[in-house]
Parts: sequence; C-alpha cells; structure tokens
Amino acid sequence: MAGRESQIVLGLDPDPRALWPEFGGGAAPGPPAERAASAVIGHCRALIDATAEACVAVKLQLACFERLGASGWSALHTVAAYARTLGLLVIADGKRGDIPVSATAYAQALVGGVETPFGPLQGLGADLVTVNPLMGSDAIEPFVTAARATGAGVLVLVRTSNPGAADIEDLTLRDGGPVWERVASLVDGLGRPGVGAAGLSDVGAVVGATAPEHLERARELMGGAPFLLPGVGAQGGRVEDLAPAFAPGRAGGLVTASRSIADAHLTTGGEPAAAARAAAEHLRETAWALSGRSRAAS
Amino acid sequence: MAGRESQIVLGLDPDPRALWPEFGGGAAPGPPAERAASAVIGHCRALIDATAEACVAVKLQLACFERLGASGWSALHTVAAYARTLGLLVIADGKRGDIPVSATAYAQALVGGVETPFGPLQGLGADLVTVNPLMGSDAIEPFVTAARATGAGVLVLVRTSNPGAADIEDLTLRDGGPVWERVASLVDGLGRPGVGAAGLSDVGAVVGATAPEHLERARELMGGAPFLLPGVGAQGGRVEDLAPAFAPGRAGGLVTASRSIADAHLTTGGEPAAAARAAAEHLRETAWALSGRSRAAS
Repeated sequence: MAGRESQIVLGLDPDPRALWPEFGGGAAPGPPAERAASAVIGHCRALIDATAEACVAVKLQLACFERLGASGWSALHTVAAYARTLGLLVIADGKRGDIPVSATAYAQALVGGVETPFGPLQGLGADLVTVNPLMGSDAIEPFVTAARATGAGVLVLVRTSNPGAADIEDLTLRDGGPVWERVASLVDGLGRPGVGAAGLSDVGAVVGATAPEHLERARELMGGAPFLLPGVGAQGGRVEDLAPAFAPGRAGGLVTASRSIADAHLTTGGEPAAAARAAAEHLRETAWALSGRSRAAS
Repeated sequence: MAGRESQIVLGLDPDPRALWPEFGGGAAPGPPAERAASAVIGHCRALIDATAEACVAVKLQLACFERLGASGWSALHTVAAYARTLGLLVIADGKRGDIPVSATAYAQALVGGVETPFGPLQGLGADLVTVNPLMGSDAIEPFVTAARATGAGVLVLVRTSNPGAADIEDLTLRDGGPVWERVASLVDGLGRPGVGAAGLSDVGAVVGATAPEHLERARELMGGAPFLLPGVGAQGGRVEDLAPAFAPGRAGGLVTASRSIADAHLTTGGEPAAAARAAAEHLRETAWALSGRSRAAS
C-alpha cells in the first residue's frame, strides 16, 4: 500500500450490457455465456490496465460473474490472476455467511482450497473476502481460520452503504446502541488474535461511505480493524468524509469505487481508459492526502 | 407436494472427501476439479434416484459446488436439471444478500436470467432461493421481483439453526422482541402482494428446526409464509417438534435434511442408497402424519 501510495480499490462489477464499447458485443461465434465471459475478461483487464497504478486492490463482485454461469466463474479466476500479476490485492466480494460446515466450504472456494481423493482443489486465492455476520460468530470463524492460515483477511459487513441498512443494522437494542455496533464488537473480538505488526487486524469491517457519521464510532469500537469503505461515487459517498477510518494509519481504510471509475467517461467524456485512470488517480490523491492528515492528527 | 405426500427436501451438500464409496475416487484421468465435479454429479444423481419418491425438492448448497470452481458451477446446473426431470423443485441455498444492483445480478444468476448483446443468459432457474436479510429490504426486493416474474419464491433467513444465531438474530430490541422477529415482519410485508390461491406467499422464511420454541411465534408473525426448516438430524432438530410450521396447511413447511439422509448408511449400515431411501421415507411419513394433525387442529 505504501509503495503505491494508494488506498483505492477498483471495484469490478462487470455488466455484460454496459461494457466499454470495444468489448460490448459484435458477431463472434460461440455460446452467449462464453462470449459474454470473454468480453467481461477483456473489459476487466482493460480497466485494471488503466487504473492499476492508482490502486492497491481489485474488488470482484461475485454476483456479476455468477450470472455468467460456469464461464463466469472461470472468468473470475482469470481476472483475479491478472490483477495479481500487476501487484494488486484481490478482494472477493461475495458477502457469504452460513452454518460452519458450509462457511468452511465457501472459505475453501474463495481463500484456501481443499485436499480431495481427486487431488488438491485450489480456491480463488483471495487476499480478502467479505462476510455476512447475521448468523453470528460461528458463521464467520471458518473464514477467519482459513484466512489466518494463508495470510489473508476477512471483511465483515458492519454498517453497509445501502438505504436498507436502516431496516436491521440500525435497529436500537435494549442494552443500548444499534445492531451494527454489536456486530462491530464481534469483529473486534474475532480480530484481536490476528493483529499484526502494523497494529492492524486480519478481521476488518465493511463500513459504508454513505453514512460517515458512523465512522468515528465504528473506529472507537474496532481500533485495529481495516475498513473497506464502499459507496463513494455512484452511491453518493465522499472521500473527504472518511478521515476517521484512517486513524490507525494509512492502511486503516480501503476506499472502493466501481461505477464512478468504470463509467467515468460517461460524465467526463473522452476514452473510457483515460477517464477511468483520471478518476482513480483523483480518488487516490484525495484519499492519500486525507489519510496523511488523519494520521498526523491521531 | 400433495401428489407426492411429502414435505421433505433432500439437502445436497456434496463433499468430495465423503461421497458414496462408488464415487469416491479412483484413478481416472483429468484435472482434479473436473474429476471431483464429475464424481459429485454421480453422487448427487444416485442420492436423488434413491430418495426422489420421498421428497418434494432438492436444496443445493451452493458453497459445496463453488469450491469445485467453474466445474462445480457446471455441476450445479447439471444436478438441478436432473432433479427437475424427476419432478423435484430446486432450492438454491446461497444465502445471498447485497446492495440492489448486486442482488439483481444474483437473482439473474439463480432465478431468472439476463438479456445481453451476446444473447440471453439463462440462470440456474431455481424454484426457491435463500436470501440473507441483514442489509434490509432493498437487498431482498430484487430477489422477490425476479422470483415473482418467473413463478419462483424467496426464503429469507429469519431464525437460523446454528448456535451463532444467538449472537445477532436473538438480540432483544429496545422496542421489544428479538432482531429475528423484526426480520419476520419484513418477510410478512414483502410477501403480502404474493399470496397465492392456497393462502401461501411467495416470500417464505428459513426457521431452524433446532429451536422449535420459536416456531409458534414465527407462524404468528408470518401467517402466509412457507417455512424452510433446516437442522433436522445432524444438527439435532426433530420433525416431531415442527407442528406450528404446518398451521396454514401441509405446504406450510419444508423439512430439509442433508447429512442424515446421505450418511444414513454410516449409522444404519447397508447400502448407501437403500439407507438414504429409508431415512427419507421415515422423515416423509413422520412429517406428513404430523402436518395432517396440525391442519386438523388449526
């Protein structure tokens, strides 16, 4: 992160109906899912090429690959491998959560792998995975165990960026505070054994950039957790409001943006790659400067 | 359901390390993931063949297919299609939940499909999908919309069967009642426009069979919701305790069992297929008799 001076995460949410024009269709032969997956790979590679210098990671939205079926799952692996060749971390954004035996299977799919009588099966090898905490600690722990064994990390949904976050996450508990603060305490507890040399844990939190009023409290409750901060750009969040995320240091926050980078040319004009590069670089500069000030103040 | 006189759902959670012996390995050529996926298909087909007469649906645990990568996603489609040829409903158990644009992509992957410049992409075509409500109604609604458009349904996690359910789902709210009851109210509201001729809605609930003390209250809060009842068998739940689920009629509850059917031979001895058939048939009889009594009493 320091080498690149970036906390920006390129969100890859490819929609086969809205790829950059050079990948958007045409009359090539083959089944639709394979053609769509091939186009998605081309689009993602071009987007990564354009923005890699300004970014520290890519975030793969698993839903967008799954809708392409088996070809999409293959594309997911291809895009992750490509990002890695450029030195980017890979965040698998699947928001999984299940009973322990199934959570273990998800962790095998996304982080580690599994030995079988047919030979070893490699997972996606993600550096970070997003996890849904509704079902409680035993739904999260298999991910933490798998991640800890491979030097990866887990990002637990604490307070998300969508309007629906108010429905359950924001409900006030009898013992005080909203539901999401209780999740934050879970995250803090699960992460304590995984705090590394830089003071940051291997269990982090997803905290939406659309409700920055919660960031300070989230930081109080999870002093060592890296924060993944979605919602900047298309969802209305602003980098300038994210200072509390960086209190433990510049690595304390990862600012993720998808449509505001990939679709920058739709508002700024110009070539998609140049517009995406400029958008990512602008985010990088803003966040890096802000996080420097936060650190000095903390 | 009435034709088969069954409310039993065969849970398919294939573990390549614990398939029925005839599918468990050997020296066939090919990459490990393809061989494992092929064995998983064989195992699932045999399990479906053995138990189809006693069951009304299969529940595919997506995690178990995803850990086989692209081959696993392909196996998922193959197994779902096979179950359909025997007249079984298909439940895609992925417990997805995400911001609306991503939830829509998941729904395209699992329920509907999507028109693209490359041609139409077909989803898995599931009859029911499990959904995680932590992120609120806007994370659930895209699934409801997609399901309603295709005659499918949604099963929202309300009170799950794992011990960790106590961590978040059972927290008491300031305004009274636990978090899961608030989720139940969401489910009831989302389902009201989708109540069909039999009085059941297209938005149902996952209510663990391991905590039957919650079933009666869940039924009060969600009068028209079909309940998916996991946790029978390996997790400790008993069919005999599930009567309140069937208050609106025999279709009010779906009893899902995975390991207690697939691994029945490990406790009863005999051939895996015969043991699985007997286990499924025993569950079917117990649930059918119980639901007849519940209906008469209601």
